[in-house]
Amino acid sequence: MTDSDNKLRIIPLGGIGEVGKNMTAIEYGDDMIVVDCGLIFPDEDMLGIDLVIPDMSYIEERAHKLRAFVITHGHEDHIGALPYALKKFHAPVFATDLTLALIEHKLDESNVDEAQLITIAPDRTINLGCFTVEFIRSTHSIPGAVMLAVSTPVGTIIHTGDFKLDFTPIDGEITDITRLGEYGKSGVLLLLSDSTNAENEGYTPSEKDLGSRFEEYFTNAQGRVIVASFASNIYRIQQIADVAIAHGRVICFQGRSMIYISEIARRLGYLNISGEHIVELSKLDNIPDNEVCIITTGSQGEPMSGLFRMANSSHKLNIGENDTVIISASAIPGNEVGIAKVINQFYNKGAKVIYDPMADVHVSGHAKRKELTLLLALVKPKFFIPIHGEYKHMHQHALLAQKTNIPPENIFELKQGEALVLDSESAEIEKDALNFGSVYVDGLGVGDIGSTVIKDRKIMSEDGVVMAIITINKVTGALMADPEVITRGFIYPKIKESDEIMCAAKENVLKVAYKYAETNRANWSSIKNAIRSTLKDYLYEKTKRHPIIIPVIIEV
Amino acid sequence: MTDSDNKLRIIPLGGIGEVGKNMTAIEYGDDMIVVDCGLIFPDEDMLGIDLVIPDMSYIEERAHKLRAFVITHGHEDHIGALPYALKKFHAPVFATDLTLALIEHKLDESNVDEAQLITIAPDRTINLGCFTVEFIRSTHSIPGAVMLAVSTPVGTIIHTGDFKLDFTPIDGEITDITRLGEYGKSGVLLLLSDSTNAENEGYTPSEKDLGSRFEEYFTNAQGRVIVASFASNIYRIQQIADVAIAHGRVICFQGRSMIYISEIARRLGYLNISGEHIVELSKLDNIPDNEVCIITTGSQGEPMSGLFRMANSSHKLNIGENDTVIISASAIPGNEVGIAKVINQFYNKGAKVIYDPMADVHVSGHAKRKELTLLLALVKPKFFIPIHGEYKHMHQHALLAQKTNIPPENIFELKQGEALVLDSESAEIEKDALNFGSVYVDGLGVGDIGSTVIKDRKIMSEDGVVMAIITINKVTGALMADPEVITRGFIYPKIKESDEIMCAAKENVLKVAYKYAETNRANWSSIKNAIRSTLKDYLYEKTKRHPIIIPVIIEV
Repeated sequence: MTDSDNKLRIIPLGGIGEVGKNMTAIEYGDDMIVVDCGLIFPDEDMLGIDLVIPDMSYIEERAHKLRAFVITHGHEDHIGALPYALKKFHAPVFATDLTLALIEHKLDESNVDEAQLITIAPDRTINLGCFTVEFIRSTHSIPGAVMLAVSTPVGTIIHTGDFKLDFTPIDGEITDITRLGEYGKSGVLLLLSDSTNAENEGYTPSEKDLGSRFEEYFTNAQGRVIVASFASNIYRIQQIADVAIAHGRVICFQGRSMIYISEIARRLGYLNISGEHIVELSKLDNIPDNEVCIITTGSQGEPMSGLFRMANSSHKLNIGENDTVIISASAIPGNEVGIAKVINQFYNKGAKVIYDPMADVHVSGHAKRKELTLLLALVKPKFFIPIHGEYKHMHQHALLAQKTNIPPENIFELKQGEALVLDSESAEIEKDALNFGSVYVDGLGVGDIGSTVIKDRKIMSEDGVVMAIITINKVTGALMADPEVITRGFIYPKIKESDEIMCAAKENVLKVAYKYAETNRANWSSIKNAIRSTLKDYLYEKTKRHPIIIPVIIEV
Repeated sequence: MTDSDNKLRIIPLGGIGEVGKNMTAIEYGDDMIVVDCGLIFPDEDMLGIDLVIPDMSYIEERAHKLRAFVITHGHEDHIGALPYALKKFHAPVFATDLTLALIEHKLDESNVDEAQLITIAPDRTINLGCFTVEFIRSTHSIPGAVMLAVSTPVGTIIHTGDFKLDFTPIDGEITDITRLGEYGKSGVLLLLSDSTNAENEGYTPSEKDLGSRFEEYFTNAQGRVIVASFASNIYRIQQIADVAIAHGRVICFQGRSMIYISEIARRLGYLNISGEHIVELSKLDNIPDNEVCIITTGSQGEPMSGLFRMANSSHKLNIGENDTVIISASAIPGNEVGIAKVINQFYNKGAKVIYDPMADVHVSGHAKRKELTLLLALVKPKFFIPIHGEYKHMHQHALLAQKTNIPPENIFELKQGEALVLDSESAEIEKDALNFGSVYVDGLGVGDIGSTVIKDRKIMSEDGVVMAIITINKVTGALMADPEVITRGFIYPKIKESDEIMCAAKENVLKVAYKYAETNRANWSSIKNAIRSTLKDYLYEKTKRHPIIIPVIIEV
């Protein structure tokens, strides 16, 4: 496959078969643009990993073609990998103002200072090589979200980013479905559309529907009101603040991201709260409880978040009987147990807790099936790729697309590692088009942690580690000291049964050593294997556990 | 508080503020009975722990009073801790036949052979010291479930166990609400009732409602049909088998518990499948795909379960394009991500997947709010304790009870460690009544793993372990060998940057050693602390990771 075959290539580097690390390269001839550049949070198997970013080697190999990063909105799964990308690639970043301000903050934190960041308003168009990109105003759970219309030499692509069709949005600016319809009428070659909620029937309710519910909860509240939400959901924070202030309460922001994002949003005019209504935590002591509203992070029950610490009495705010806690979010899959723990802890402290799905405290930011169908019907693409979802979401979205009369053979449920290659007439999947993968970020290390390290962490997390050290005279091979056997995470050493096991383990190590003639002890790997195998069997028999066993030979 | 104060004590040893390890002692004067004896599966913080059982020290301290274990049904969270309890306590176990057969199987596996197991049919009554216990027929997601009516010297207790009110159950035997109503009319002192579904509106549908859905899925299926379900849900398995056989398919059971529970249930007549319709895995090769139905474990996406291995191509059955997978269960909180992974893997292999909540493939075994209200209204207890739930479930159940006109002061949302002390007129909470706790079982160890070991496992799971070994002449204090620095789960040693870090770490250890005069190297703890602190700082600076650091000094 050559690069000059007059074909358009759609190369998803993330966001296919997963919710997160959205990143899609669009390539034609000598030009390439990249839509979004996100991270995904590690799943529970990725022990100790802080975050995961896409494998960008496909772009690295064609870095000379890269014209720009074009970013649809400011969520972590769309911007979080930019600091890593911009350390490698010198290309401008185009986004709306709030998105760009959030990117700027991330780059500052990562000490990336040479980035070229260019603000583009919705409705505006930019030329990037052979591509023309129009920003189409959209609604999502963060302001400043856009869809993209990418005109290419073989036809127009619509990329939805993440979206819902909120017809009564807080800022009054609906998704520009008129513009989408105009594109649909003039002919769209390919649609890539958000599949997150493709399993869910009906419409996602409007953000505005929550206002009257907050009104009710605040009217009934007696002591403090604590609301946990996503820091980036500025519309939500605006509604909460409006109701709180109308009820004579001051606002106190808690949580690192809540504090900096609310500052950025106020500076850019997306969040309208007069400074006189905002107080710092240290000032709350002088304000009666029923005049206080805390807006905090931690809606996913994250350990160390503001809300988690309040629930577990490790926060300066001691939440108690008269207080009302509103968790204004739904669980991201995997966080259900953590959220339930926080709710249970608040009940344990006697607080009132209002949470999803027991009360209306949250609406999704993603389009459900009716909205997805409306978009498909409006854009009428020749070809369709469901994106931004696990395979099960993509599959449901593909079935919906069939109902809008897109022929099944024009719908592409891509697998990780596949690309779509198309011209104005035809499209086909290119298998093994790229090294689709996950790069683990752990502390300062980017990609230095691989499966071996994770596997060791996994074993140690379950059964711990046992080290057996023998000391040998390097000339004679004589044993120079008693063997040492040291454990961590294996058994609790200070009880009698454990002590007996450890003593017997030492004897086992000694026996293995004696099996080798002194002159034969230079054969390290053989002794080590024998120690490992003997200890493994002995410890499993005694405990039914399989720790990592590390034999060490010291030569003196 | 003495034991002879003519008070009845209700002592929950588990199942309060948690879904699992249900166990409640009922004590009066010199008599005590224990209702249920369950385990709970470890949550993700309890690294490496296999299962968790209640702290039974309250019973141990009063073992002479113990008259019996009375078991409501055969689920793990009601019987799973019996092997551990029966190693300590010699008391008979009363239960219905299926429950008892499942208990017997567990005891065999744990080599407990002296247990006194006594079968009691529903409707029958037993005398246990000053208590009389009647078994009341109930419906749940396993056959043989009962509620208990316990007559005590101060009044009657109704304990629901786990229940739903299925009026069209598969075996035709509904919950004996007439008997419950009779008790209600003659006066019930205390109700303890299942809170699992207290957040959910309406009624739980009947098990029988699923039959027509299975009929539909099997009619549309082309290749093999694989159904995953809980092994103990005999009603479900009966319905699946009936439909499968009617469609000309043979049944193949997969998964250890599915195989032994289906055997027990067939032997006792709870599962009616003629032997000619059951085949072993090894015989499937000779049977066309559209004549095969696999019934398997793994409905929670458990690693190593039958379904998980089929999804990940590590099972003899290679599931592919024509096959239909039905996951006939809903997610137990915490398992959502695991189940989604299995579903996505099957889509990736091209199979059709039918799952909750996208399709009707499961009904709960627990009563929802309407049913809970019906029960409260029928039993009309003077006092009420919501049990079997997290605090949030118990709280919702308590609010429901208020609606049935039980005064709030007669409703007791117990906290872990609290008991209820009552006579015929009054009831009050006894705080700190018992050492409510969790005993970890890890392999053969029961209670030998404490928070230190778990904490070590936690650190190693995130950042690994680093050992630093120095070797010293015990007479002169001279260093006898180069320091060794060995890591697991910390960095991947085979890349250049890691190698550099490890070399520098060794030099750091050497520097620390040299700081001590040779004559002063007997001060082990001081040298060890210095090595630990130096390495900690150095490694954090280089990696932003905090491994466990284990300094070891070998004297030769």
